[in-house]
Amino acid sequence: MRPGEGVDAIETPALVIDLDAMERNLARMAEFARTHGVRLRPHAKMHKSATIARLQMQAGAVGVCVQKLSEAQVLADLGVDDIFITNEVIAPSKLERLAALAQRIRLAVAVDSALGVERLARALRSAGGTLDVFVEIDVGQGRCGVAPAAAGALAHQVVSHGLRFAGLQAYHGRAQHLRGASEREAATRHAVTAARTAQASITAAGIACPLVTGAGSGSFVFEAASGVYGELQVGSYLFMDRDYADNEPAPSAPRFEHALFVKSQVVSRGHSHAVVDAGHKSHAIDSGLPRVWGRDWTFANGGDEHGILHGAALPALGETVWLVPGHCDPTVNLHDEYVALRGGLQHGVVEAHWAVDARGCSR
Amino acid sequence: MRPGEGVDAIETPALVIDLDAMERNLARMAEFARTHGVRLRPHAKMHKSATIARLQMQAGAVGVCVQKLSEAQVLADLGVDDIFITNEVIAPSKLERLAALAQRIRLAVAVDSALGVERLARALRSAGGTLDVFVEIDVGQGRCGVAPAAAGALAHQVVSHGLRFAGLQAYHGRAQHLRGASEREAATRHAVTAARTAQASITAAGIACPLVTGAGSGSFVFEAASGVYGELQVGSYLFMDRDYADNEPAPSAPRFEHALFVKSQVVSRGHSHAVVDAGHKSHAIDSGLPRVWGRDWTFANGGDEHGILHGAALPALGETVWLVPGHCDPTVNLHDEYVALRGGLQHGVVEAHWAVDARGCSR
Repeated sequence: MRPGEGVDAIETPALVIDLDAMERNLARMAEFARTHGVRLRPHAKMHKSATIARLQMQAGAVGVCVQKLSEAQVLADLGVDDIFITNEVIAPSKLERLAALAQRIRLAVAVDSALGVERLARALRSAGGTLDVFVEIDVGQGRCGVAPAAAGALAHQVVSHGLRFAGLQAYHGRAQHLRGASEREAATRHAVTAARTAQASITAAGIACPLVTGAGSGSFVFEAASGVYGELQVGSYLFMDRDYADNEPAPSAPRFEHALFVKSQVVSRGHSHAVVDAGHKSHAIDSGLPRVWGRDWTFANGGDEHGILHGAALPALGETVWLVPGHCDPTVNLHDEYVALRGGLQHGVVEAHWAVDARGCSR
Repeated sequence: MRPGEGVDAIETPALVIDLDAMERNLARMAEFARTHGVRLRPHAKMHKSATIARLQMQAGAVGVCVQKLSEAQVLADLGVDDIFITNEVIAPSKLERLAALAQRIRLAVAVDSALGVERLARALRSAGGTLDVFVEIDVGQGRCGVAPAAAGALAHQVVSHGLRFAGLQAYHGRAQHLRGASEREAATRHAVTAARTAQASITAAGIACPLVTGAGSGSFVFEAASGVYGELQVGSYLFMDRDYADNEPAPSAPRFEHALFVKSQVVSRGHSHAVVDAGHKSHAIDSGLPRVWGRDWTFANGGDEHGILHGAALPALGETVWLVPGHCDPTVNLHDEYVALRGGLQHGVVEAHWAVDARGCSR
């Protein structure tokens, strides 16, 4: 399956990008951000690819987000020069590497504890570099982040340690997958209120708050309209998984198409079922099973390496079955490369192979 | 975290083997197979490591199983010379590589269709090699495999094509995770009956059936006692995941210990929860969430890169938390390497790093 070969040459299971669909998604989100006057900093934890990060930045993104230091290191080595680690880093050995990385690229990181600020400051002093520090607030996710009213105190510690306070990390993960658009709007309203509370507490501490950043592919229209968020960290819009497609779209949201697929093949046929060669070692099932693309067959879990199809007029042995993953981020993380296809799933031609550069980078 | 360093030097999240526990598990299963007069062919889809495959063969295993051709290729390149692909291969491009591999090592593969046999025979004729062909029967899993009574007809086709018929692949995946020992025994009894039916149909076709192979870590005592199964394909016994440990053990079964862990670190603390840096990009959750090792804290899903702990006397920021994965096979498949620890989780020393050689090999 070299570039120029047809879609039939792609061995299964394979992680395939429909490039035409991906480029339309890319352009739609870039246009949305421009039109609404917000910065776009897509989350590269989703695609883990320096090639795709560069395409996003060429389309107007100010940089990318990642979730882990090791992702940032890999992307920086491949030329991505503006990265925000939207997460806490606590281990001193990692903070050393973080400080070294800050000397090479424009880097940002989140904090949510005094210990985190102190250790970060120590590592930066000893390396001699600097970076942007965002105070993470809990806007309803119940995971990381300080209470909004405590943001001022932590921002004060950031500044006291001679670090550059860059604003608030205010991402509401749970809001993304609420099915109803009005439910997502309500959850985002809660996040916006929390961000305002945090801003007030920072102002009260005599510190300027340059930016509130956050939002995901399920809620970004609401953050963009809030007047509070200045930057969107959307990730999944580019590939659109089954789980996001199951959301009721917000009325004003641009439409995104499925652009990421797992190509599979029927390797066994029973009287009333077909078995494909893709199981949960080929697609993540944390957000549910994949959907069969373009056909009414249901997909049942067949274990690590198999999927079981039921329905009418099932495919014959050897036939291709296209799957839309339930959740793109951890699905991508299972594969070493993307096959980038031009011209659609039926008659497309392989245009390129892109490495999943930061695959497995969870440190 | 070089060999010789202490456990504290292992950066998180990390896939850690407790070598002492693993070696006890290895010896217990080897002894069981010897005592019961059955061959042991552990499933390397679980660990995907040539180093571990060699340890198993040194302890008496006749070879290993894998699920995919690409796994077999990687392990063969690293010196594993007796491999059974317990699965159907249908794509002609893969069958070409399979035939080439059969010239280098002792290789076996499963078939469950006339088309599969025909294509396999064609590939082997053109390459000039040979291998062992097992007819897979459906013993209750409802996935791959012909009906037991149809095994004779397919074995006949195998032989007619000049291929070497080696026996029956008769694995019952669903039986492994039934919680009650008597439920697993009943399911295995069904599999044994199915295997007998298949044997009879093969004998009736005038063909000898040299071997029935199958079994997993939840049911192997029953297959071993059946007098029908001559080979055990157990995999998880070596590492023991949370899901297998939740099974009620069979009275006569050897006990296996947890030997695989994900080391994680607390990166954020709330008033009533702690957040660790391991989510489902670090451990598979298809069989449920991990269990915290040695503590009563509950683990809640925190997304791709986080886990959320609740309970009394929660760990402080920066502390280590050891997790027992819900399912070892797909957890291993997320990581590029094992850290092999000697001397226990508290005070152990890193003895080696072992690559997860066949990570991501799903083709």
